[in-house]
Amino acid sequence: MTCNHTIHKHHHHLGWDNTIEPVLSVAPGQTIAVETIDASGGQLHANATLEDLTALDFDKVNPVTGPIHVDGAEPGDAVAITFDAFHASGWGWTANIPGFGLLADDFPDAALHVWTYDTGLSKPALFSPMGQVALKPFVGTIGLALAEKGLHSVVPPRRVGGNLDIRDNCRGSTLYLPVEVAGGLLSLGDTHAAQGDGEICGTAIESPMTVEITVDLVKNANFAFPRLETGGPVTNHIDGHGYRVTTGIGPDLMQSARDAVRQMIDWICATAKVSPVDAYMLCSVSGDLRISEIVDMPNWVVSFYFPKSVLG
Amino acid sequence: MTCNHTIHKHHHHLGWDNTIEPVLSVAPGQTIAVETIDASGGQLHANATLEDLTALDFDKVNPVTGPIHVDGAEPGDAVAITFDAFHASGWGWTANIPGFGLLADDFPDAALHVWTYDTGLSKPALFSPMGQVALKPFVGTIGLALAEKGLHSVVPPRRVGGNLDIRDNCRGSTLYLPVEVAGGLLSLGDTHAAQGDGEICGTAIESPMTVEITVDLVKNANFAFPRLETGGPVTNHIDGHGYRVTTGIGPDLMQSARDAVRQMIDWICATAKVSPVDAYMLCSVSGDLRISEIVDMPNWVVSFYFPKSVLG
Repeated sequence: MTCNHTIHKHHHHLGWDNTIEPVLSVAPGQTIAVETIDASGGQLHANATLEDLTALDFDKVNPVTGPIHVDGAEPGDAVAITFDAFHASGWGWTANIPGFGLLADDFPDAALHVWTYDTGLSKPALFSPMGQVALKPFVGTIGLALAEKGLHSVVPPRRVGGNLDIRDNCRGSTLYLPVEVAGGLLSLGDTHAAQGDGEICGTAIESPMTVEITVDLVKNANFAFPRLETGGPVTNHIDGHGYRVTTGIGPDLMQSARDAVRQMIDWICATAKVSPVDAYMLCSVSGDLRISEIVDMPNWVVSFYFPKSVLG
Repeated sequence: MTCNHTIHKHHHHLGWDNTIEPVLSVAPGQTIAVETIDASGGQLHANATLEDLTALDFDKVNPVTGPIHVDGAEPGDAVAITFDAFHASGWGWTANIPGFGLLADDFPDAALHVWTYDTGLSKPALFSPMGQVALKPFVGTIGLALAEKGLHSVVPPRRVGGNLDIRDNCRGSTLYLPVEVAGGLLSLGDTHAAQGDGEICGTAIESPMTVEITVDLVKNANFAFPRLETGGPVTNHIDGHGYRVTTGIGPDLMQSARDAVRQMIDWICATAKVSPVDAYMLCSVSGDLRISEIVDMPNWVVSFYFPKSVLG
């Protein structure tokens, strides 16, 4: 397929600000090929080392390509983005960045893994002899401009989207984002080759790509938050052998999430030749945080599902 | 298969207490057929009405069959329970019970739906012309006795298990429960014909069954919380057509879970002839709460995945 438009990666910005000039205006229904830079903003690359990671300038992370003005979009509408195709680069990185991630207190030291993978996506990416991760590329950060003036950090997601890290914003899905300003002002970046629900170590398989999207408009949608539709099952690529599941049980969902993930790292390290920080990163790129039970007062159950296929 | 033992449903108890006499002692590796009563303790039945629901005596809810003494189980070990077969009764109930459930404030009025279903489980259960739910029976409540003396409520789950409501404690899975007292003292009940992650309205398809299990022992496991292994994919029975997904975004996971579910109820009611409380109950028996992102400070993303197959 040939898209109606292409936006190259030099048309990116850092943070959200509704005064950033659009690089493109599109009518609803048009298609766009969007080049992205990886979440490091190009500071890491296929030959990057731990030294490159520790030298990261955080003012340059998570660039997003855009913004795209969607003709006719007004506050209260939703911009619909269908993900038509992903052209993957064949390399990516996963890191433990000190101070960042669900278990930041447990893992104070920086760690980096650089992946190379089959751009046809037909084979899992190899972490090492231990750890093969089936790939499903998706867009980690995709959002519209906020109505609120000023420059807003790209790190937290918001009701207009942003750093959602929903791993099902993948080929065949349609995402709906609430519009707060005229034209919506859509940007995207932070593409990932694979990630589990939670992105628990703070990074996925961070990988630059070109993403083909169709942009459409739902008038007067009045959605409070983003929503999406997937085109099919969401874990078929990775769960054929089932899961190991650990739990955290208690009155605080965040604490229980930490407990569940800690247990899984223990389980992986007890049964495979993997260091704790490598297990943590493998969990981030492939395992899912689920809330199994949120009603049996006063204790809830958060479960972490780790696909058995990863350890083969 | 013929089990080594059978425990009938009159051998049940209400709440957890390590002084309750075992009804059976088994050696590791033995199989047991366990009859369960539904979570109402037999107060609801295939012809139950809203009047029966409002007359519920909560002192009789959630009976568990047992306890089973596992020979050789000592504190620090884990009892392993493999779920070999489920013999379903063909009927079940789902209710909104005032004061109970994730959206208790939104749904103050009692509601009851009684299901009948194919005991061969080959067909989805019909809620009404709208709403067909693929079935996957599992054990909602399964646990060991606590070391702490006294009678403990059966409502909250704890590190020894109990009202876990993990919908993958189903055929082919093996659950590991931490032992706190000699013999473990295993009991189970609260069987469900179907439920999504979260059990968001507070009930599933509550359905009495006979469950065949194999009980085994892992010495010196020292697990902090329950864990399990599934024998295969966990949502293949229901996700063939993909999902609708709603989100809640913010710094509080509980609030975001509520926001995501509220959005889904709105979405269902806007597109199908279903009342809000019926949509709430359909969400509980089939939709999944997932934590999509728990690292992009200060806002997390909780997503609610509702299978498109349910609305046909």
